Parts: sequence; C-alpha cells; structure tokens
Amino acid sequence: MCHVCVVESVKERMLSRRDLFKGSLAGAAAAATATVSVNAPAMAATPTKVADMTHELSGEFPTYFGQPGFASEQRFNFKENGFNLLTMNVNEHTGTHLDAPLHFSADGQSVAEIPVENLVVPLAVIDIREKASGDDEAQVTPDDLKAWIDRNGPMPDRCCVALHSGWDKLTATPKFRNADDQGVMRFPGFHVEAAKMLIEETTAVGLASDTLSLDIGSSGDFATHYAWLPTNRWGIENIANLDQVPKAGATLVVGAPKHRGGTGGPSRIFTLM
Amino acid sequence: MCHVCVVESVKERMLSRRDLFKGSLAGAAAAATATVSVNAPAMAATPTKVADMTHELSGEFPTYFGQPGFASEQRFNFKENGFNLLTMNVNEHTGTHLDAPLHFSADGQSVAEIPVENLVVPLAVIDIREKASGDDEAQVTPDDLKAWIDRNGPMPDRCCVALHSGWDKLTATPKFRNADDQGVMRFPGFHVEAAKMLIEETTAVGLASDTLSLDIGSSGDFATHYAWLPTNRWGIENIANLDQVPKAGATLVVGAPKHRGGTGGPSRIFTLM
Repeated sequence: MCHVCVVESVKERMLSRRDLFKGSLAGAAAAATATVSVNAPAMAATPTKVADMTHELSGEFPTYFGQPGFASEQRFNFKENGFNLLTMNVNEHTGTHLDAPLHFSADGQSVAEIPVENLVVPLAVIDIREKASGDDEAQVTPDDLKAWIDRNGPMPDRCCVALHSGWDKLTATPKFRNADDQGVMRFPGFHVEAAKMLIEETTAVGLASDTLSLDIGSSGDFATHYAWLPTNRWGIENIANLDQVPKAGATLVVGAPKHRGGTGGPSRIFTLM
Repeated sequence: MCHVCVVESVKERMLSRRDLFKGSLAGAAAAATATVSVNAPAMAATPTKVADMTHELSGEFPTYFGQPGFASEQRFNFKENGFNLLTMNVNEHTGTHLDAPLHFSADGQSVAEIPVENLVVPLAVIDIREKASGDDEAQVTPDDLKAWIDRNGPMPDRCCVALHSGWDKLTATPKFRNADDQGVMRFPGFHVEAAKMLIEETTAVGLASDTLSLDIGSSGDFATHYAWLPTNRWGIENIANLDQVPKAGATLVVGAPKHRGGTGGPSRIFTLM
C-alpha cells in the first residue's frame, strides 16, 4: 500500500472505528476535573506490591531513529546556587513512553486528552519469549491471544495487552535495535491481525511492547500503529520488567505525561499486584 | 540565616537525618529490577476510583520564576509525514511536578533513584482552605497536623502529606503567582515546623502542595525545602484536585519521571480510592 493510500485508509478507519470510543474526548475533558471509576475487575484483589515498568531515561537510551532522544543541561547547581535544576530536551517517543492516538492520526486524542480511566487498567501479558529466542521478528498473533484467553478467560474490560519478548534486557546492547548494514532493524512486535482482533472482539484500550515499536523492527507500513492508534487506543513502547508481573490479574498504572497537544511522551509506569 | 549558613546547615542535616533512609540508594537500584512491597495500609481497601491530580502542562502554565517552563515543537505532522511527533523543552520544575531530594541537596536521591515503594503511598490531606481564604500565606502548621491525627489516627506509614489550600483553581489567573510590584509572591505553603514534626515523629516520605512551592510564596530561605528534601524525602508542587479525594484512606501514585540525575520533573499523579 502506498503512503497516500495508507493515510486515506487511516482516515476511513478513524471514521468507522472511533464509534467504540464515542464521547471519549468529552470524557477526557471531564476527567481533568472529575473522579472517575476504574475497572472493578482491575482492582479485584487488594494490591500489596508494585513493580516499576520503566527504564531509566538518558541520552544513551536507544531510539527508533537511532539519534539520542533525550538531553539535559544543569542550569543551577547546589554548590553555587544552593539548589540543583536541569532543563531537558526530549523527543516525545523516547525511553519507556506512550504513543497517544494522535501520534498516528489527524485528530485522535492527545496525551492530555486520554480519559484517566483508560490509564489505570487490567494488564494481560502475552509471553512470546520462547518464539522470540529463535526469531528476532517474532510477533504476537491472534493465536497467542487465543492461547492467553484459553488459559485466563476473556480479556478484561478496557485492558492493556503487553508483548513480552524479553527484549527489555537488551537495552544496553546493539541487539536492542538490531540494525543491519542497511539500517533495517529486526525486533518483535504485534501482528496487525492481533491488533484487529483486539479492536473487533474486546474493549482493550492499550498495547504495550518491550521493544522499540508496536510493529516489528523491519515494518515499512506501520500496520499495527495505523490499525490501533486511530481508534483512540494508546500504545506503550520500551516497557520494562514484564518478567516481574503476573500474566493476568494485575493493574497497570500509566503515568503518561499531560502536555497540551502531546502525541505521547516518556511515562512512569507501574504494575500493582 | 545567610546563604552559606543555609548550605552548611543543610549539609549537617543531611548527615544526621539521612539515617532514616539508610540504604535507600541501594534500594532504588534494586527497585529498578525488582518488585517491592507497598504499604499494606495504603491498599487496605479495594480501589475502584481514580482521580487525576495533574494539571495540563503547556507554556502558559504559571511558573515559580515567572518564565515559561515548557515549550514544544512539531517535528513531524500527520498530513505530510503520516504521523505526528513533537520535541519538548522542559524546565524540570514546571507544572504538576516532583522535587527529588537532589533538588535541594548535594547528593540526595535523583528522581531516578527514589525507591518505587516511596511513589505508591498513603495520602493524608490537610485542608487549610478556610484559613487560606483570608490569608494568602496561610501555612500548614504542627497544629494542623495534630488536628488531622486527632480526627484520622496516626499518620500512615510512609505517607504523603498534602496541603490543600484550594489554590489549584487559580492557575489560569494572576492570583496563582500573586506577585506584587516588587515581584514578591504570596501563596500558601508548609511551615518548616510542620516539616520538622513529620521528619521527627512520622515516616512520611512526601509533601505535596497545590501551590507553586512547598514554602510560602515570599519565602527567602526555602526553610521547608531545606528541612525536607535533604532527608531523602520528596515534594510535589502544583498538585491538582485535592477536593476530589478523601482526607484519609486513599493511595497516591506518583508517576515521577525517571531521567538519570534528574532533580525532579513534570509527573502524572493519580489518587486511587
């Protein structure tokens, strides 16, 4: 599909698939000043543990484009000024970060418009470590989702579905980007048919990947991004520590940034268990 | 107290008061890769609601220094590039944000080093709206803390104590900074004796203010900052929506940024109820 076709196709999809989230923008505005209910099932158990799903951010953290996505400068220092303060230059899509619907759509929700109840959600972890150990572009497929459902029951209402390839342990190595001589990267991602299945058969609101992208590294068409984000669902890239949380039953808290018009940004993400 | 004396005094305090948090740095390193327990009391009830305690961030949000603390630039746009992406320039201490211990100390915890179990904590809200309505520099005093304790019992283990002046409703008005002709600001804050009482008598780990600073607006010595942060406790400034959460019994989730060496930064903050 050519680029223009992709864009046109996205527009069509936005018209048809946004129905599921009709009223979400109004909801987001209300969320700024109102307390909202979260999924009872998401909080069914009394959480007593927390896991940090966030990589440390620095200029050294590998990025999709291969250029540093973060820099900071010390403007005040304790010795001379009595306090420390930095300013930061940040590419929104750096480190453990959110993709807001607006990232891959003309008028989807910005990061500040995502309803708060979509940021505290049940977590479903799809463990593809075994197949990823032998295939750098292993994908979460509809069969993987069905296997999870067979084991754990239906996908929880408004959940986040996370791809666990084990790739988060590679961030300090060239293997994380895994680029060849032509710059083509190879790492795991979500198959577009898995994204479509979640859109059509569940109320999942988020995808999370422990790699640099929701799509596999060599993707040229960003099929999963274009299928998922324009429906006012969000994505997380570079999530960490999925090996420390259960496959089902935990709650993901997505500390997304909240800058006006933002298309995403470095986020602090916790799992409560 | 002259500035040098303040600094010397801070160094002394850091040596004596950090005992309470001995091992916290090691704990933070472990937290990056380990699941840790949070306060059972913090999670005693099954949370079913979430409130967003975060103001929307933009270049228009009022700052302590009076200069814009945030700017963004659109680097890619959907129409021409098929996706939207911004870069951001951010002063760490802008919007609803964290003050890490390192902000007012030589070697306190950076924002990336705060133990994760100190970021999911019980919330104690001190409502001073009545006195703040008649006094722009109303303070949370030890008497206010005692009144809270009389009503709700002991401060919960490792809690965050929040100052609720109602000032969060003023962010779109000059009253939020409330600066006079000489640039001296006047808004509510924590009295240093309240901070000291919490340090000496409780295990509270955080202070949160719905104003621009932990100290009152006209503070010249930042007494509360210097008493609190060097003990490896953190602060939140510009917290929103304390009127939507209970005075006791809720859990604060502090989605602090996690950049290496950071002295704080815009944070996404939720209350679970």
